Parts: sequence; structure tokens; C-alpha cells
Amino acid sequence: MAVYTQLGPEQVSALLSRYDAGDLIALKGIAEGVENSNYFVETTKSRFILTLYENRVDPADLPFFYSLLKHLHDAGCKVPRFITDRNGKWLQEIAGRPACLIEFLQGVSVTQPTTAQAGSTGVALGEMHAALADFAGTRANSLGVAAWRPLAQRCTEAGLDGIQPGLGKRIQSECDFLERNWPVDLPQSAIHADLFPDNVLMLGDHVTGLIDFYFACTDARGYDLAVTHSAWCFSTDGQTFRQGVSHALLTGYVQTFPVDVPTRDALKVLLRGACLRFLLTRCYDWINTPASALVTRKDPLAFLRRLDFYSDDANMATIMGQMT
Amino acid sequence: MAVYTQLGPEQVSALLSRYDAGDLIALKGIAEGVENSNYFVETTKSRFILTLYENRVDPADLPFFYSLLKHLHDAGCKVPRFITDRNGKWLQEIAGRPACLIEFLQGVSVTQPTTAQAGSTGVALGEMHAALADFAGTRANSLGVAAWRPLAQRCTEAGLDGIQPGLGKRIQSECDFLERNWPVDLPQSAIHADLFPDNVLMLGDHVTGLIDFYFACTDARGYDLAVTHSAWCFSTDGQTFRQGVSHALLTGYVQTFPVDVPTRDALKVLLRGACLRFLLTRCYDWINTPASALVTRKDPLAFLRRLDFYSDDANMATIMGQMT
Repeated sequence: MAVYTQLGPEQVSALLSRYDAGDLIALKGIAEGVENSNYFVETTKSRFILTLYENRVDPADLPFFYSLLKHLHDAGCKVPRFITDRNGKWLQEIAGRPACLIEFLQGVSVTQPTTAQAGSTGVALGEMHAALADFAGTRANSLGVAAWRPLAQRCTEAGLDGIQPGLGKRIQSECDFLERNWPVDLPQSAIHADLFPDNVLMLGDHVTGLIDFYFACTDARGYDLAVTHSAWCFSTDGQTFRQGVSHALLTGYVQTFPVDVPTRDALKVLLRGACLRFLLTRCYDWINTPASALVTRKDPLAFLRRLDFYSDDANMATIMGQMT
Repeated sequence: MAVYTQLGPEQVSALLSRYDAGDLIALKGIAEGVENSNYFVETTKSRFILTLYENRVDPADLPFFYSLLKHLHDAGCKVPRFITDRNGKWLQEIAGRPACLIEFLQGVSVTQPTTAQAGSTGVALGEMHAALADFAGTRANSLGVAAWRPLAQRCTEAGLDGIQPGLGKRIQSECDFLERNWPVDLPQSAIHADLFPDNVLMLGDHVTGLIDFYFACTDARGYDLAVTHSAWCFSTDGQTFRQGVSHALLTGYVQTFPVDVPTRDALKVLLRGACLRFLLTRCYDWINTPASALVTRKDPLAFLRRLDFYSDDANMATIMGQMT
């Protein structure tokens, strides 16, 4: 959430000269997305996001992200396109880093979604899954079920119980449960895998863009629904389940993209898995980010509370009742 | 150069509802300016910068900055205006912080100024000084000559010589020189006091905005010229004096705002003072910013090199020759 590589307008103008994109008239470093550097670029013709890929994104994955977004855009989904230059090139280099010029989309990321906004997001997620049914690209989920125990181990060694006494043991037993019960034969496709409200642009109740696909990978579609549910349907601290938001999100999704029976049967496990994934990465970031750093550390326990919620059968009965 | 306070669109929309400013359609945290949080705000009507004042800006100084920018704007200078709401209020509160909605100006901050760009900046500085001749507001320069020895003392205690052996002693003797020779009767007015290329927006060779007035204060006009000269007329690392840029900047300035004899006579001292001010604050930031922090630490020695340059009589003869 910062600008890691400083760019001058001379460098950006040189880059823009490869495109039919007009002349540079504004350039602002923006605090957005995963660990990339992002610039708001305005030209005499249009507006763009210029993304420089820092260490967290593997350049070898960029062709997957490019073709994923092209596929979604061609299918009518609201996602930002990578812009190609006069020679058809979408991947550039600037300041020694891989870089892409990306379409700028209007809209804002809500922090307190309304039921109407959750409903629209459920529809957009369903439309995305429908559009991806015939997408051929694949990318392994490096933060999937197989990654959780090793990540838990690293966190435990670095001091998980400093976050909350007993947390290491709780996470171990959740790994046990999930490894025993993880569904292996669910319908898969490319999924977003990180569809938090941050990553949905809206104007009023309408979705204007799904963004930040840098965790996109091949995995169970139901896991994408589970991630989205866990991200949208609670107060930020995870204390309060937002029942109306959940109902709207699930209704929007299932009316757009029918949920098969195996996915439905596995939903509890998928939801618990989604919580563990974010609990673990947040614990890792918490332990490894100095409190003094300018990056906002996100409370890991907000996802422990969600995990507790989904582990309760009565709560799951409520959620399953909303899936119709 | 980061966003310290996270804002959601709900908060920004609530703020905008006090203005006739249209509805929010984009919101991006931007990495810009001193230690404030800044957002790019686009509405159905216009575009703005929303600034939240964090610890570094004293809220008691905000009325000075407001009236300074209003005065400059009314005089035809290209500066961003503070926007007033329906009740004439320009100072708001958001997320517990003082906040102002500010006009968005097109243009980019060049990193390698051309002579034409330096000339335009000299003219813009001269026009600003002309416009400020009848500005009544005052604000003490908290980073003026009286502040340098105490700041040097704090840096020495914290380890100046860790930056470069002998630096503490060099700075002490420069304080001695400047305190003995600092001119006290020069024409004063409100000045920008920080007019680095960062703080000048340009389109091509034309200045579209002078920005970031948060160091503005009452001091010798010639000191403002000295700061600007030291900021514009060298390679970033201070190694190379850019003679053509210097000539263009000085010519643009003196043709717009004639330099009085006492200011001209004091220019060498003013230039050395400007270098010491930035050498000291950069040393302070260098010592007090962990290398791991996301803030880019600026090389203090880049201003020691400028100080060396201006301390050489042959170099000063060149500069004085360019002032005609």
C-alpha cells in the first residue's frame, strides 16, 4: 500500500510514447493493491493505472493475469484491461521492473457494504464464474490447502502465541480438520481468490469493476464464493455477522451461477478454509511487519472470529438456508 | 509519502455532501507531499485533492495557508485553491483530523528540469513574490537560521558522523559562519521556502501549479530564491551544477521581480543557508528513519555537495554573472 519505485514524468512519457495514449498531464503515485507500485496516469486522451510489479508478483505469472482479464473483458465482465502498445505488447519495463498500463475504472471500494451492494457483488462473482467456464489458463493456488500447515509452522516458530495465547494450537487443529475434510473433486476454474470489498469498485449499488486479480488461480469455484462470503458478511473486526448482507450476496450469486450439490455440501469446509488462509497470512504479516512501519497491519483475529462463526452448526444452518 | 489515515468512500461522500461538488466516482489514496494523508477525489462535477493533516502540520497554521493561497489565486498565480463548502467553510474534520478539500491541478513534477522549465519556474517564483508584496499574513520560519544550531546539536547527539566522518564539525563551523553573516534587514514577505521541482506542476515548459505550501513562512525573499536555486540547479545527488538551468531560473526570476542590492549582496550567504537547512533536515530524517521504512530517505550529502559548491568564490562569480 505504498509506492516502492519512484517514477518521474520523463520515464512515464517515454513509456506512453509507445502507445496511442495521448500526452501525460497528471501523474500521482497511489496507495493501492498488493505489494506493487501503482500510479494514476492521466493523458490528453484517457486515464490509466500504471502498475510496476515489485517482488511479490512473479513476472512468470503475468501472462496468466493478462489472458484472464482479456477473457473476462471479452465476455462482458467489468474488469480493467491491460492496454497494448502499437506493437501489441502489453508487458513493458520501466525503472528495471515489469510494468503494465491498465485501464482506469471509475468507482469506489465501499467499506460498509449495503445489502444492495452485496447483492450486486454476488451477481458479479457469478457472472465471472460463468465467463471463466471456458477459460483455459491455469495457475496453481500457492495459498491453497497444501500451503496452510507449512505457513502455520513458520508462524508458530516466529511467535504465533504472542498474538493470542493458544493460537498456535488452535491453528494446528484447524489444519488437521481441513486436511482431513478438504473436498478434492469440486468443480474448478480460474477464481479471483481475494474478492474483498477493497477489490470491487462500485458506483452506488452497481459494480463498475472487479480489480486486483494478483491472487487469481485455479481452484474450486466454491472456495471463491467462500472467500467472498467471509470477506463481505462481517463487521471488519469479525465480531458481527451481517445476516442481510450474507443473504443478498448468496442470493445474487446462486441466481446467476447455480451452485452444484458437492460444492453446497462442502461449503462449511470451504468457508473455514477461507478463514484459515486469511488468518494465517495476516498472522504472518503481523509478526513480520514492525509496528512502526507505514503499512497498516490487519488484525489477524478478525478472521479467527469468522472461523469460530462458521464452525458453529447453527450459524451454518442459517447460511445454508440463505442459499436457496 | 504515504496514506496515514484510511478513509472509506462513505466518509468522503458525507464530507462532499456539504459542498456543491457532485457525487463521488473515484477515490485513491496518493503518495504525495509532506506528512499528510492525501486522496485523489473525483466527482461527477470535478476533481479534488482531499488532504488530512497529520502530526507535522500544526492546525493553528492552516488559516495562514488558506489565506496565502487565496491571495495568490486572486492575484492570478497558479496555485490550488481550498474549496469552501455551502456555508463558506474551508476547514473540515474527517476521521478525527483537520481536513481540506483542495482544487486538483493538472501537470506533472519534472525530475530533470530543462532550461525552459527552469525559466518558467523562475518567472512563476517572481510572480509569486510580486503578488505577495501586499499580503498581510505572517508565520515564523520554524526552520530558519535560529533553528539550525539546535537542530545540528540534536543530529550530532544522534550520530551525525555515522553519515560521514567529520560531518558534525563541518556543520558546526557552517553554523558559526551563517550566524555571523546572516543578513537581518533584507526585504521580507511570505515565501514558499520549499520550491523543489516536486512542488511545481508543469505541462511541457509551462507551470500549471505551485503546490505544497506547508513550509511557507515569513522570511527574506532572497532566501526563497536561494532555496529554489539550490533545489533546481544541480543533479539530484548534488554532484553536477547545471549551469544552463541556473541561468534560465535566475533570468526568469530577475526579469519578473527585480532583485534589490542588499539581497544580491547577501545571495552567497542565503544560498549556503538554504543548503544547511536541507542538509540538517535530511540528516535528521536519515538518522531517525529506519532503513527498512517505506519512506524514501533522501541523501543528506547531496546538500553538503551544494554547500561546498556555493562556498567557492569562483562558482559564486558565475552565479552572480547570471543575475543580470
